[in-house]
Amino acid sequence: MRILSGLQPTGRLHLGNYFGMMQPALQLQHEGEAFYFIADYHSLTAIQNAKVLRENVQNLAVDFLACGLDPEKAVFFRQSDVPEVTELSWILNTVTPMPMLENCHSYKDKIANGITPNSGLFTYPVLMAADILIYDSDLVPVGKDQKQHLEVTRDIAVKMNLAYGEGLLKVPKERIREEAAVVIGTDGKKMSKSYGNTIELFEEEKPFKKKFKKIETDSTPVPDPKPIEGSNILPLYRLVATPEEVATMEQEHRAGGVGYGAFKERLGDKMWDFFAEARARRADILSKPGYVEDVLQAGAAKARAVAKKTVERVRHAVGLG
Amino acid sequence: MRILSGLQPTGRLHLGNYFGMMQPALQLQHEGEAFYFIADYHSLTAIQNAKVLRENVQNLAVDFLACGLDPEKAVFFRQSDVPEVTELSWILNTVTPMPMLENCHSYKDKIANGITPNSGLFTYPVLMAADILIYDSDLVPVGKDQKQHLEVTRDIAVKMNLAYGEGLLKVPKERIREEAAVVIGTDGKKMSKSYGNTIELFEEEKPFKKKFKKIETDSTPVPDPKPIEGSNILPLYRLVATPEEVATMEQEHRAGGVGYGAFKERLGDKMWDFFAEARARRADILSKPGYVEDVLQAGAAKARAVAKKTVERVRHAVGLG
Repeated sequence: MRILSGLQPTGRLHLGNYFGMMQPALQLQHEGEAFYFIADYHSLTAIQNAKVLRENVQNLAVDFLACGLDPEKAVFFRQSDVPEVTELSWILNTVTPMPMLENCHSYKDKIANGITPNSGLFTYPVLMAADILIYDSDLVPVGKDQKQHLEVTRDIAVKMNLAYGEGLLKVPKERIREEAAVVIGTDGKKMSKSYGNTIELFEEEKPFKKKFKKIETDSTPVPDPKPIEGSNILPLYRLVATPEEVATMEQEHRAGGVGYGAFKERLGDKMWDFFAEARARRADILSKPGYVEDVLQAGAAKARAVAKKTVERVRHAVGLG
Repeated sequence: MRILSGLQPTGRLHLGNYFGMMQPALQLQHEGEAFYFIADYHSLTAIQNAKVLRENVQNLAVDFLACGLDPEKAVFFRQSDVPEVTELSWILNTVTPMPMLENCHSYKDKIANGITPNSGLFTYPVLMAADILIYDSDLVPVGKDQKQHLEVTRDIAVKMNLAYGEGLLKVPKERIREEAAVVIGTDGKKMSKSYGNTIELFEEEKPFKKKFKKIETDSTPVPDPKPIEGSNILPLYRLVATPEEVATMEQEHRAGGVGYGAFKERLGDKMWDFFAEARARRADILSKPGYVEDVLQAGAAKARAVAKKTVERVRHAVGLG
C-alpha cells in the first residue's frame, strides 16, 4: 500500500506544524510504503522569492529527517525533482471542468478575503491531483481542510478513466486525519505564523523556553485554585507529558499553591526534553554536508521512476508522442 | 531572429487552412530561424480521442512538409516532445492573475456559447505563453484572433522579469498577420470544418475537382453577364491564378457567354495544378516510412536543447531544485 503525503515548505517548523501535521505523517511510514514530498511547485503560488523558498525547502527537509523520517523506509523527495508531475497536471486540466475548481472552498475563501488569486492558486487542486495520481497512491491522509481537494482528485481520476479507459489511473482512497491536535499558540488561539503566536521546535534553549513564559494566563494569585478549562498551558503539556504528569499538574491547578510561572517552566522543560532526540539528530544531519541533498536525490530517483511510468501510460492513452 | 509558429492538428488540411495559415507561416522560414510546432498538448482541450489526435498530428506533419516546410532550414517538432513546456507553464501560472485569463475573448466566447469549458481551455493562454517564452522567441506572427493571447504572453513575461529579475525571459514582439486570405468555402461563407464547406488539399483528383462544381452560384443563364461582386468562384481563383488569368475570367463574367460550370471547371483545374508539386512531395514523403518521425525527432532534439536551458534558468531564478 502506497501512502502519499505532501508538505508545503512554509518556514521554520513550529509546534503547530509538528503535532498537527508532521507527527501524524511520520506514523504512516510504519503502515505502508510512504512517499513524502516537499511541495515546492505549489509554494510558488505564495512565495515569489528564490532565496526564501530554497531555505524553506532545505529547513523542512532537515527538520523532517530530524523528527524521525527514515529515508531507508520512506521515499522522501522534492516535488520539483519530478517535473513529470507538471506534464500530468496539464493533461488532467483538459478533463477538469471549470466549476469543479471554481467551487473549491479554499479558492473561494481567498477571493472572499479580497485576494486577487493567480491562476496557479486556482489550478492548485489539479497539480495536487497529479501529485497523487502520478504515484499510483493508494491512500492519502489529509486534514479536513484538504478533504474537498481530494474529492477533486478522485473526480479527475474517474473522468480520465471514463474518457481514456478503465484502470488508467488509480483512484485513491482518502483518510481524514483525526484532528488529534489543534495546537494552541502562546495566546490561546490556534498556533499559526499569521497570528505571531508560534513556538519554533529548533530554537536555542533559552529563547525556546522563554516563549513558554509568554503564554497568556489569567491573573489568579499563586495560592488560589486555577481553572483547568481555558488553560493555555495544559493543552500543550498534554501533547508531551505522561498521563501521570498531566494528572499531577491538573491536581495542582485545582489545589492552588503553584503559580503559572512554575507551570510554564515545567511545560518548557518538558517540551525541551521531548525534542532532545530530534535536536541530536538534527545536529548530526547538519554536521554532514550533502547528506540531505543525497537523501532527496535518492528519493527523487525512486519517485521519478514511478512517475515516468504513469506519464508514459497516460501519454499513450491520450494520444501524445 | 527566432520566429515561432504553433499549429493545431485539427484534421485534414483544407484550402482555408492552407491559404489562411500554412502559406503565410511557410514564408517565415526565409525571414529568420523558424520554429514550427504541432500543438498537440493544446489539442487535448478539444480532442479526447487518442486515435484521432495521433492521426491529425501525423497528417499535419506530412502536409506541412509536403507544402514546403524545409526541415533543413526550420525546426519542426511536436509540442509534446518537449515536456519542459508544461513545467514552465506551471511556473507562469503562479504569476498570472486570474482576471488576465478571465478576460480573454476566446474563453468568454466559449462560455457565451454555452460550453462548459475545462480548465485546460481556461489556462490555454498560459501554455501558449510557455511555448513562446521557452524558445526565447523574438517574433510571433499571429492572426487577429490570437492578438490578445500574445498580449497575455507579453504581460506574463514582464511579470516574471519584475518578480525574478530583468532579462529572465525575452519579451516577444507580435506581428499581426495581414488578413491576406479569408478563404471562402463552397457556400460563400468562411471555409471551416464546422460549416461543412471545405475543400481538402490532398483529395484524389476526381473528388477534389468535384468539390469545386458544388460551389454555390446564382442562376444567371449562360449567355448573360454575371456579377463579379459576390462571386464564390473568383475569390478562390484569385488565390492561385495569374493576374492575367483573373482578368480574363472577370472579363468573361462581364461579357457573358460562359457558364458557371465552365468557370468552376477552370478553377478546379487551376487549383489541382497549383498543388501538383505539393502532391508529388507528399507522395514521396509517404513512400519513405519513418521519414516524418525522423524529421520531428530531429526538430524536437534542437527545440528541447533550447527549452531545457530556459527552464533551468527559470528554475534557478524562482528557487526550485
